[in-house]
Amino acid sequence: MPNVDTILHNAVVLTMDKEFRIFEPGAVAVKDNLIVAVGPETEILNGFEAAHLVDCQGKVLMPGIINTHTHVPMTLLRGLADDLRLDVWLMGYMMPVEREFVTPEFVRLGTKLACAEMIRSGVTAFADMYYFEDAIAETTAEVGMRAWAGQTVMKFPAPDAKSYEDSLALCEALIKKWKGHPLIVPAIAPHAVYTCPAEVLMACAKMAKQYDVPIHFHVAETSSEVETLRNAEGMPVVPYIKKLGMLDVKLLAAHCVYVDEGEIRTMLHYNVGIAHNPSSNLKLASGFAPIKRMLELGCNVGVGTDGTASNNDLDMFEEIRLASFVAKAHSGDPTALPARQALEMVTIQGARAMHIADITGSLEAGKRADLITVEVDLVHNSPRFRRDPNGIYAQLIYAAKAADVRDVMVEGKWLMQDKQLMTIDEKAALQEAQVLAVKIDNFLKGREESVISKLIAIGGAAEMESFEVQSKVRVDDLDEIEKALFIPEIEIVRVRHYHEFDSYFSFEDPSQGRLRYREDEFIDENGKITNVRSRLTLIGSENESFDEEILLSRSRYLAPASHSLRFYNEYFKPSSVLEIEKNRLRYLIRYKEEEFFVNFDKLIRPDIGHFIEIKSRTWSKQDADKKAAMVAELLDKLGLANKVHIHEDYVSLIEKAQR
Amino acid sequence: MPNVDTILHNAVVLTMDKEFRIFEPGAVAVKDNLIVAVGPETEILNGFEAAHLVDCQGKVLMPGIINTHTHVPMTLLRGLADDLRLDVWLMGYMMPVEREFVTPEFVRLGTKLACAEMIRSGVTAFADMYYFEDAIAETTAEVGMRAWAGQTVMKFPAPDAKSYEDSLALCEALIKKWKGHPLIVPAIAPHAVYTCPAEVLMACAKMAKQYDVPIHFHVAETSSEVETLRNAEGMPVVPYIKKLGMLDVKLLAAHCVYVDEGEIRTMLHYNVGIAHNPSSNLKLASGFAPIKRMLELGCNVGVGTDGTASNNDLDMFEEIRLASFVAKAHSGDPTALPARQALEMVTIQGARAMHIADITGSLEAGKRADLITVEVDLVHNSPRFRRDPNGIYAQLIYAAKAADVRDVMVEGKWLMQDKQLMTIDEKAALQEAQVLAVKIDNFLKGREESVISKLIAIGGAAEMESFEVQSKVRVDDLDEIEKALFIPEIEIVRVRHYHEFDSYFSFEDPSQGRLRYREDEFIDENGKITNVRSRLTLIGSENESFDEEILLSRSRYLAPASHSLRFYNEYFKPSSVLEIEKNRLRYLIRYKEEEFFVNFDKLIRPDIGHFIEIKSRTWSKQDADKKAAMVAELLDKLGLANKVHIHEDYVSLIEKAQR
Repeated sequence: MPNVDTILHNAVVLTMDKEFRIFEPGAVAVKDNLIVAVGPETEILNGFEAAHLVDCQGKVLMPGIINTHTHVPMTLLRGLADDLRLDVWLMGYMMPVEREFVTPEFVRLGTKLACAEMIRSGVTAFADMYYFEDAIAETTAEVGMRAWAGQTVMKFPAPDAKSYEDSLALCEALIKKWKGHPLIVPAIAPHAVYTCPAEVLMACAKMAKQYDVPIHFHVAETSSEVETLRNAEGMPVVPYIKKLGMLDVKLLAAHCVYVDEGEIRTMLHYNVGIAHNPSSNLKLASGFAPIKRMLELGCNVGVGTDGTASNNDLDMFEEIRLASFVAKAHSGDPTALPARQALEMVTIQGARAMHIADITGSLEAGKRADLITVEVDLVHNSPRFRRDPNGIYAQLIYAAKAADVRDVMVEGKWLMQDKQLMTIDEKAALQEAQVLAVKIDNFLKGREESVISKLIAIGGAAEMESFEVQSKVRVDDLDEIEKALFIPEIEIVRVRHYHEFDSYFSFEDPSQGRLRYREDEFIDENGKITNVRSRLTLIGSENESFDEEILLSRSRYLAPASHSLRFYNEYFKPSSVLEIEKNRLRYLIRYKEEEFFVNFDKLIRPDIGHFIEIKSRTWSKQDADKKAAMVAELLDKLGLANKVHIHEDYVSLIEKAQR
Repeated sequence: MPNVDTILHNAVVLTMDKEFRIFEPGAVAVKDNLIVAVGPETEILNGFEAAHLVDCQGKVLMPGIINTHTHVPMTLLRGLADDLRLDVWLMGYMMPVEREFVTPEFVRLGTKLACAEMIRSGVTAFADMYYFEDAIAETTAEVGMRAWAGQTVMKFPAPDAKSYEDSLALCEALIKKWKGHPLIVPAIAPHAVYTCPAEVLMACAKMAKQYDVPIHFHVAETSSEVETLRNAEGMPVVPYIKKLGMLDVKLLAAHCVYVDEGEIRTMLHYNVGIAHNPSSNLKLASGFAPIKRMLELGCNVGVGTDGTASNNDLDMFEEIRLASFVAKAHSGDPTALPARQALEMVTIQGARAMHIADITGSLEAGKRADLITVEVDLVHNSPRFRRDPNGIYAQLIYAAKAADVRDVMVEGKWLMQDKQLMTIDEKAALQEAQVLAVKIDNFLKGREESVISKLIAIGGAAEMESFEVQSKVRVDDLDEIEKALFIPEIEIVRVRHYHEFDSYFSFEDPSQGRLRYREDEFIDENGKITNVRSRLTLIGSENESFDEEILLSRSRYLAPASHSLRFYNEYFKPSSVLEIEKNRLRYLIRYKEEEFFVNFDKLIRPDIGHFIEIKSRTWSKQDADKKAAMVAELLDKLGLANKVHIHEDYVSLIEKAQR
């Protein structure tokens, strides 16, 4: 009789092979890292001599579960910020914290904890995408799990790379080190179309082809991603990345929420693996992926948890149940995504999506020994009906829990036996993680103490001390005064016409200053909008007036507003917001070698009248004094010397009127 | 110092009181069945002398979770039939099995198992609706849980009542026995508007008012429920039941998937409790309840698991996470139903929905001691960030699992300590349940062996041996022959015009016979459809032809088709379906004291020509012989004696042509 290392017997063996064979009682024989035989218990026990016999006591014995999309080190950021919009969550919390904390040590610890959680819930293989992916690959291999290690590439500076060229160099080193490893598949992970310009994606596709490695990529996760691309490129995501050569390699496309029939068929044609992430898509309100249709057409759709920071766990039992529930509810068809097909998605289909179905995903002789046992007779999963052969799949999908997994083997090696982890010191890792959590808490607490820190944290804000002199008078007729500008001493440099929308954020602590979000519409001579510009300005709280006609304000931070007003509102949480809308004719003039802005303003909302404003930027108190005197001269030339001069800026003026 | 029985200390105490106070480290003092004090640990430890000190070791200590809608004994039917439509599932599987198996012993066992599962997942109170509710109340009280025991009332015969009057008598007995019990609230549970006519609902409302007990009721679960009611009564569910007096009592409305803005406001005005059941609504593809809006308006919305047969578990951790996810995804707003509000729904809001918020739902001095502890430092729920006070709620809603509950106390009594159940012999109950599952499997297996048994199982099929004699000839012109009917020997009794749509189900085993689903449209003299009728006929497999002109077929079961064609298709799973559409002018004539049908048939789909058919029902072979001779005479009178007579019925004729 041939010798094997281990026979697992007395189990309900779900092979997940092409015929969905079930053996009960069944057994599996394992030698080295491979499955040698799968079949009825007596056949296997009589056919092989085993060094170790494992009595599964009636538990289900099935292929390991495959998590096709995650960011494992983010276990360390679980619960950091919840119930937020994707952009606030990502740009306001995740990225700032990642910029500050993510190091090779961070990802090693996070990977260890993620592996512990995944092994406990029966996962044997996962597809990752993060930074310092070499350290993730090392930790995963030490733990003994199977993974795609996907090194992130994007246009922004990342924790592990200053530019995308640096990221690609990391990819190349990763590939050279890991290609051919029994557990680790090195992968290139360009983040998404909105973070990777065409040349970055083309470079990734080229490298993937050169080294024959796969690509892990976020595809059409939100409607705004697709709409933005359509506006810029005239096409949705799939044809766009096809044009760039991304479909000519082994591609794993995560999310695919907003893909149409044609795109699904294209992905099918190019054998693209799809990673469906129901928890993440629901929690971030991204939408409902057309999974039922993808499955009908025959796409390889696996299931992923996404990172724990947006889920908030790595529980594939919960994930697949949700996938089935959502497919039913979204299609209005309770027979959609039935239990057996759901289990297929997290086993053999997941392996196909990751292009590793030749070695894992089902219990078949010749495949790697990646397998788990699950208890199905606990109080929350009883009784068991046997009339319908699909009943056992329904038990696993609709009632079993991650905690019901008892044993996990990967590549022929036990990673968990009887709920004891064999390769991870969970307690030490948890303690280390808690120490780090305190540091992250303190970092965010410090940041949230001031609006300025929050502004800096999301990047893009340039600190600059800026004084401004300004004087303002209320007038009846703007046109008359405009004519008075055209005198020899005044040179008209340029004139612009704007429609301005300002939102002023105030904070409970007035010393924080005021944050202004401005959207300018540029109007051409025909009255048409030619361009829109958004800017963010944090204005210091102290106003000083130099003399009757002059207001000096101190602008401290200026930034292009790359996010939306709604984003800033949720991120900065102002105590009140004041909105001002005005029509502005803005002259840039030169007077005695200095430049001034002369604004002809018509306040629309609130409708408080017409104003002439003369302003000049300045960089020192001395210069401000000089310019303040010149502003007084200019007002005189415009015939406004006798008018009541207003000391406040518009926002103060309006607030005072409203009080 | 005042004496108390127990102090639970060293906990993160989430009070869920009006101010959402959190004490960390906090403590709770319990005396008899009541909470005596809640506060900071030192304050409680210094303020009271306790017989028992329980160190919670940093776990969360919070109010028990409330499951506001379930059918507890259905734990015994978990996994019996999945991935089916609501009607097939309910009428095809649940109700037939319930009719056969549900007894007081059945509900006792099912309740015990449900209580075990619920206690393990931190539930302390639930609202039930089932049969033999007195036995459920007895078991629940023995176990020590808090519950509404809702005795089902409906127009159909139920396992515990032949008529609704019987059900109401059971309600009255239940109320008299249990009213005033410290744990059990007796309730009247009319099933739904589609199973309870107006007089039944009015009688329920009247009794609820008379005894001041609440009503537990399914409201607007599916769109078809609402559409059917709109067609019949001209209004949706809420105004309809308001008219019947159902809102004048303490009402708990389960599901509320299809309620509009006005109905939500009406429910708010009448303080109706709402039980949201996300798993059930998703799994059965019922739809998405407008929970975000209900909460915005201030409704008391609790969360329920529904029965395990449609969920498939009683896991409230999963349920509330799903409620939050679905509210976000369905509204497109990731800030909808944030974690703290979600936890509120399953604690104090659930208590309000059940009209028991005066005694439970929050940790406050004076309320009953219904509380649980939950571990929040396990690997799937780490690390813990403390910067945001809502972080602990996010941990519970988005990452904690039912299995993380360690201790459960109800009414001051421990039901679980350190994961050991104190009042239930779980193992014995599980064994008993498995014995029963085998019996149910065998019942269904026997049933599924024959189409007849399946037809009987869903009710309404009348068994009747019916012979039919028939003869058929193909003709070119129906009108000519129609004129030949008007001779003195033939009395025209009546004539009807139909448009007939037949679906013939065939089965792999031909001895099962053929099942015909027929939809008749009645056409009036102006060509308008006046009525539609559906019938189901199981036609025996043996055809015997008596002589050249006569076909005898044996119809064995006749039933009004109360379900849709789609239902029967899914329920009977035919191996093939043949559809036939025809236009029929049907004369009922009297000839020599016997009645015959003469059909002038124009086959439309498939288009195989025009036919004259003469038929007569018969009840014995002898009579059939006699009538067969008379049919030959009639054919002769119509000038058709020389035509080729067709021996098959239409379905055989078409099948033969298609082969």
